[in-house]
Amino acid sequence: MQLTQFVHRSLRASPDAVMTIFDGRLRTCRESVDRMSRLAGGFQTLGLRTGDRVAILASNSDYYHEALLACWWFGAVASPVNSRWSTAEITYALEDSGSTVLLVDENFASVGSTLREACPGLTTVVYCGSGPVRDRMLDYERVIAEATPVDDLRVGGDTLALLLYTGGTTGVPKGVMISHQALMTSALGTLAAGSVAVSNGTNLAINPLFHIAGIVGWLAQSLMGGTQVFMPNFSPRTFLEAVDRHRPTTVGLVPTMLQMLVDYEDSTTYDLSSVRILRYGASPISPTLLERVMQMFPNSSFVQGYGMTETAHISMLSPADHLEGGDLLRSAGRVLPHCEVKIVDPTGAELPPGEVGEIVTFGSHVMLGYWNKPKETAEVLRDGWMHTGDAGYLDARGYLFIVDRIKDMIVTGGENVYSTEVENALAQHESVASCAVIGLPDTQWGERVHAVVVLRHGFDADADELRAHVKTLIAGYKSPRTFQFVDALPLSAAGKILKRDLRCNAT
Amino acid sequence: MQLTQFVHRSLRASPDAVMTIFDGRLRTCRESVDRMSRLAGGFQTLGLRTGDRVAILASNSDYYHEALLACWWFGAVASPVNSRWSTAEITYALEDSGSTVLLVDENFASVGSTLREACPGLTTVVYCGSGPVRDRMLDYERVIAEATPVDDLRVGGDTLALLLYTGGTTGVPKGVMISHQALMTSALGTLAAGSVAVSNGTNLAINPLFHIAGIVGWLAQSLMGGTQVFMPNFSPRTFLEAVDRHRPTTVGLVPTMLQMLVDYEDSTTYDLSSVRILRYGASPISPTLLERVMQMFPNSSFVQGYGMTETAHISMLSPADHLEGGDLLRSAGRVLPHCEVKIVDPTGAELPPGEVGEIVTFGSHVMLGYWNKPKETAEVLRDGWMHTGDAGYLDARGYLFIVDRIKDMIVTGGENVYSTEVENALAQHESVASCAVIGLPDTQWGERVHAVVVLRHGFDADADELRAHVKTLIAGYKSPRTFQFVDALPLSAAGKILKRDLRCNAT
Repeated sequence: MQLTQFVHRSLRASPDAVMTIFDGRLRTCRESVDRMSRLAGGFQTLGLRTGDRVAILASNSDYYHEALLACWWFGAVASPVNSRWSTAEITYALEDSGSTVLLVDENFASVGSTLREACPGLTTVVYCGSGPVRDRMLDYERVIAEATPVDDLRVGGDTLALLLYTGGTTGVPKGVMISHQALMTSALGTLAAGSVAVSNGTNLAINPLFHIAGIVGWLAQSLMGGTQVFMPNFSPRTFLEAVDRHRPTTVGLVPTMLQMLVDYEDSTTYDLSSVRILRYGASPISPTLLERVMQMFPNSSFVQGYGMTETAHISMLSPADHLEGGDLLRSAGRVLPHCEVKIVDPTGAELPPGEVGEIVTFGSHVMLGYWNKPKETAEVLRDGWMHTGDAGYLDARGYLFIVDRIKDMIVTGGENVYSTEVENALAQHESVASCAVIGLPDTQWGERVHAVVVLRHGFDADADELRAHVKTLIAGYKSPRTFQFVDALPLSAAGKILKRDLRCNAT
Repeated sequence: MQLTQFVHRSLRASPDAVMTIFDGRLRTCRESVDRMSRLAGGFQTLGLRTGDRVAILASNSDYYHEALLACWWFGAVASPVNSRWSTAEITYALEDSGSTVLLVDENFASVGSTLREACPGLTTVVYCGSGPVRDRMLDYERVIAEATPVDDLRVGGDTLALLLYTGGTTGVPKGVMISHQALMTSALGTLAAGSVAVSNGTNLAINPLFHIAGIVGWLAQSLMGGTQVFMPNFSPRTFLEAVDRHRPTTVGLVPTMLQMLVDYEDSTTYDLSSVRILRYGASPISPTLLERVMQMFPNSSFVQGYGMTETAHISMLSPADHLEGGDLLRSAGRVLPHCEVKIVDPTGAELPPGEVGEIVTFGSHVMLGYWNKPKETAEVLRDGWMHTGDAGYLDARGYLFIVDRIKDMIVTGGENVYSTEVENALAQHESVASCAVIGLPDTQWGERVHAVVVLRHGFDADADELRAHVKTLIAGYKSPRTFQFVDALPLSAAGKILKRDLRCNAT
């Protein structure tokens, strides 16, 4: 299995169809393939060889699409960098990966200059943005124009394709090594479950391509032909305009974006009828939000994917599941046909349906390991089973429910408390806009349950009132002992709450 | 990728759901897994080890399902034998594969006894049929009952899983080596294209499991959970009864079976509303037949798969293509998302859209090679590209059209004549029920175009009339010089016309 295979298939099936759209710029499949085969030649002229790493620090664009495929064209490794990270974190990722070439666009040009100084191993920075080429950077367009197109080396299988740095919620960044085989398996398995891409459809690629969900969404549509419309960033207005203008059949979003969309005032002036599949991930959707989103996208079905960088999607809540609704909306859906998932206790023994334990998964979709981190790899990859660090259970019908991050579980007075259970109880109070529950060190209880709360605009509530509310819903020992009221919760690039940051700031 | 993975997934998701139905016997997933893990243990007690070959000569049944999975459970190779072959051919396959264990059911018990004598390497014959166990055979049920269940060794990837003997239309049988990876890739890619299996649906497994189409159809449904209903053989009545009784969501048939169904008088008394997907293969469908089949299965969509044992399905005509109809019905559909297909000339150079050449395909779905036949393997597998021996073209939209077998192409007076073109012209005469066109050695023309014709019951036509009819449709040099009228055409197990036999009998 080989990530560039779809390119050849599309070139034969529809060479003159539009493959990419970005910022008013349309490129046919033929043009796109010509550019990526030249860029691959250009990369080789810069000294890059099979196995070398190319870092990309950019917003979604057609350049990103070309650069990923150009790397794979001759067996190089693409290392998309999380553009929301600090310069120190990005420096770490670049140094750790040993990337010698970095691509930056206009949004990250100054960071690119800084990185050039900070990373001695970085020999070349290529500017793939609008406007004039920055100092001491190569011009992306010139690299392409001056290069000789090269043939696809057809490298695939277990060859490393993607080095994605992760660790935003857990500490030291780790480079997740994803092979051609793993990414293709994930994309095919996700497609096999149905309803993630339309044959020859148009995908609005708004999930960042430095995130596994963005990559898989892009690849799944690519495998089915069609067009990618790249959006560099999200706002309700630009999104609605893009849907109205480009008529995408599939879009991928996160629930926080969906909330912003339904809360946007002028949404009815846009034609959203083209959307047939709306994928979302990162967290479940509330019934209220789903209902509003369904009204907003009348022709769309809805799918939710669950997974992590190390595994890509391992389960999916299908359109039919969304129609069934109810408790199923809290589920991460059924295990995808390309993989195996089980729930284990701390000794590794499999647990029966309904019992909460660690979610582990096995199959060709699992990462090769963490780059240069054999110890960390051995901790999570045991006998081929990837230990996700997520606590959850499978119900009697095989639906996966995520309960918590294992490390977010709070042990207070000898009792296990799952932070999400407390968060769900808190969230039912009308004054609570969002919240996060963490365990803080406590001399008496070992850990104490601590809640960080954002109040809804125009509403009010104090600790006593919220604590009393929670006690009407769940056991007293699960109720937060201490509260903290903040204006906003810290979020990762993937839209996940950074509990690590909360723990640091809460002491 | 590993063929037993779905078994574990199903066992977790729905242990008490019915996994197999055969002859009124229902087995839950839990029972089925218990039996296959015991059978794997029993096989090991018989001396079988990873890599050893187990031949199966039987009609479709739940035993077949258990035996395939039991082999894969410990890394053995299943070698399903074409039960329509002669004893001499089957002997060849058993000897060539070096199978030490053979499973036979009641339909092939006497052949089994003969094979036991004819094949010195065959140490054990296991009787997996109804009625008393035959002489000098082991009792399948007893092997299971006395065995200790063993753990799945989780052998997968490039490990050989399936050895399928083919060559019915071309001469000496060859063992096609199919790996876990190849079969899983084919099944996932076929599912990814959509509309071949329903999640947790019921598949009526009537295509023989010794045929790649039968295996892929069975596996695709298995990957999506659900139930397999096994039918040992086809007749319109038993098929219609099975659909009425078991309410399958998907069925796989060949056009000749579909023709028999629509011609069956009492079909309206059966409830066929459960069928949502009807797969067919081996040949295209006529618009007239499709219309009648659509009326017969009002809730069904239709998909056609094209491929060969060496590649499984490589293209598919989708439900939407069937609704578009017209010329598309003559097409084998679009290239599947897991593979690559191109058209090449005899030098291997790729041909542009519309030009006829050999169909070749590349990807993880391709066989490992022919068992013990490096020369024959090298002839068809060149730089990883499988040369199908089929002549065809891709149109401007990427639809694949099969024109002929390369070796069925006739060269007469220096001109290439594709036999199917002549057959299509002949078939338009009202008196022609079916026909085959071949090239016969000819001193004047090199080869001459020769037609073998089955006349429609109650109609009449002679050579002159048919030749004149053909000349109104295609060039004179393509028109048959000689005719032969027969009662029936010789067909392979897969329903393909055996042109080799026609050539032998026509001289």
